[in-house]
Amino acid sequence: VVGGHQFERRAGRAIPARVLDRATIEAALGRLELLAPIEQGFVAYSRGETVVPPVGELLFDDPPGDAHIKCGYIRGGEHFVVKIATGFYRNAGLGLPGNSGLMLLFSQRTGMLEYVLLEEGHLTNVRTALAGAVAARWLGPARVDRIAIFGTGLMARMQLEYLARVTPCRDVIVWGRRQDAVDACGADMRRAGYTVETTLDPARAAATANLLVTTTAATSPILLASHVQPGTHITAMGSDTPDKHELDVQLAGRADVYVADSIGQCAERGELHHALAAGTRSRDRVVELGQVIAERAPGRTAASQISIADLTGVAVQDIQIARCVVDAIRRRAATD
Amino acid sequence: VVGGHQFERRAGRAIPARVLDRATIEAALGRLELLAPIEQGFVAYSRGETVVPPVGELLFDDPPGDAHIKCGYIRGGEHFVVKIATGFYRNAGLGLPGNSGLMLLFSQRTGMLEYVLLEEGHLTNVRTALAGAVAARWLGPARVDRIAIFGTGLMARMQLEYLARVTPCRDVIVWGRRQDAVDACGADMRRAGYTVETTLDPARAAATANLLVTTTAATSPILLASHVQPGTHITAMGSDTPDKHELDVQLAGRADVYVADSIGQCAERGELHHALAAGTRSRDRVVELGQVIAERAPGRTAASQISIADLTGVAVQDIQIARCVVDAIRRRAATD
Repeated sequence: VVGGHQFERRAGRAIPARVLDRATIEAALGRLELLAPIEQGFVAYSRGETVVPPVGELLFDDPPGDAHIKCGYIRGGEHFVVKIATGFYRNAGLGLPGNSGLMLLFSQRTGMLEYVLLEEGHLTNVRTALAGAVAARWLGPARVDRIAIFGTGLMARMQLEYLARVTPCRDVIVWGRRQDAVDACGADMRRAGYTVETTLDPARAAATANLLVTTTAATSPILLASHVQPGTHITAMGSDTPDKHELDVQLAGRADVYVADSIGQCAERGELHHALAAGTRSRDRVVELGQVIAERAPGRTAASQISIADLTGVAVQDIQIARCVVDAIRRRAATD
Repeated sequence: VVGGHQFERRAGRAIPARVLDRATIEAALGRLELLAPIEQGFVAYSRGETVVPPVGELLFDDPPGDAHIKCGYIRGGEHFVVKIATGFYRNAGLGLPGNSGLMLLFSQRTGMLEYVLLEEGHLTNVRTALAGAVAARWLGPARVDRIAIFGTGLMARMQLEYLARVTPCRDVIVWGRRQDAVDACGADMRRAGYTVETTLDPARAAATANLLVTTTAATSPILLASHVQPGTHITAMGSDTPDKHELDVQLAGRADVYVADSIGQCAERGELHHALAAGTRSRDRVVELGQVIAERAPGRTAASQISIADLTGVAVQDIQIARCVVDAIRRRAATD
């Protein structure tokens, strides 16, 4: 042979990547305060300090599922991150979780793969729940009377769990399409000390709460403009593909404050996508969450306003959570 | 807490992904005949049996580098594949290889991550070299008098090495920009039993050979139409970003046969990209390698023709090599 392999060796050997399993990642997570790093990530993104290409997507028909590839970096940082997250909704029937995935950290200086985080979708879930808490912190009503959660899956539970970091409210109404699903979700929430009402009527959920979170995979709107009371904040986080759709376009149009995690990404795969298509909202009536956090754009300016946070999930959240986990593990290793 | 994590556990635990290190992958590779699977991959791709989204790309300025994310699947197959490959050309100064990367196999039925191949860019190198051999097999002259390799890096050596699977020719001329680089590359090739001439003049290399392979990161053309003799085949594999460019647009225009690994991808980031922009070649004068292999498009039809294979690297090659490696490791495990 010519010696391609030998040359490859002579050219230098890579330092093998470090593989972190889920237990190691969860242990590190437990010691971390992540709200501030996620907020800083949104700010860096909206300031243009990040490089975040469009989301890569693979769709599957039978069984239905999707894979999203998000990648990017903060300029001048140590790593760039590639995150793959999958969602296959029929997995429950196989005794498997609906989500999977991993995060990868490469050096910005050498391109070498340094860390493989076998997080199985957990870090995506956590950073998604944290984004909901960040949105509620910056846009939620001053006094949350009641929380309404639309959806009965894992993210419904995690959104409520992480909201406890930003509001003392422990009164919740859960909406779902099926009684057994709202019952099971409500039972989990009661066990955690919440006062829980369940309903199959979205109007009822919206009428009794002023902090609403939609966490469904709906492809036609659940929440209408007529459902929502003045003074309400809505975080819509279900939509992450162009066909998903939770908020009626009239509601998206009428909101006093409309905040996207990424205007570009929401225009392609968030609620904004549908509102732009319907002509009920234009891009110049949307600001980014990072601008609100940096106080470069107004959030809620009056108690009676209706605000919407349209969250599709941006790679900068993956960058921030992956970085925090790896830093925590490195600090631990250094002190051991 | 509400029990997001507990619910996540109740919803089923994932089977942990199997992590394969480089030594395991190299051992499996040594036992595999990969030319046929790579050919079948090109055929499946050109028949539309695959789903291959556009390449994801991250570019870096200082130090210069790039990361490419390729993903896709063959419909009805077991897995989908995500491959990340990086190239940072200044790594040699740090004693590190210029390339890194990994391949990931997920279930098409559940989205679960099943295999992490820590191949450090090696499988990308091998499948790229195999594609060069496939192109030479289907498009090369019936009798190869001499091989000209343009470039002096790892891929220059690997292309020659893998060409030995499809031609008995052991006479080679190596072109490079620097004498020390062609000397080192030539020495490796001589050690492997080749008769080697080195040159800094591309016209000399092209004039004395009838199977040419360009493996550079050039951003302005190395090879001109006037350099190339009738009866020559050229495989251009250096270009994988829109700014890379190895073949003069007149040469791309005049070739009798122009074959792309992927017309869509070459139109964006191959030599075809430049020829289309210059108007020297149109899309209807290009066929795909998979069509030639399936004999649905003619390749070379006369000994005096000039043919070009424009290879940018398609995810289906990653799918095929990753699948073969994993299958070999599973077979091994089953018989142990």
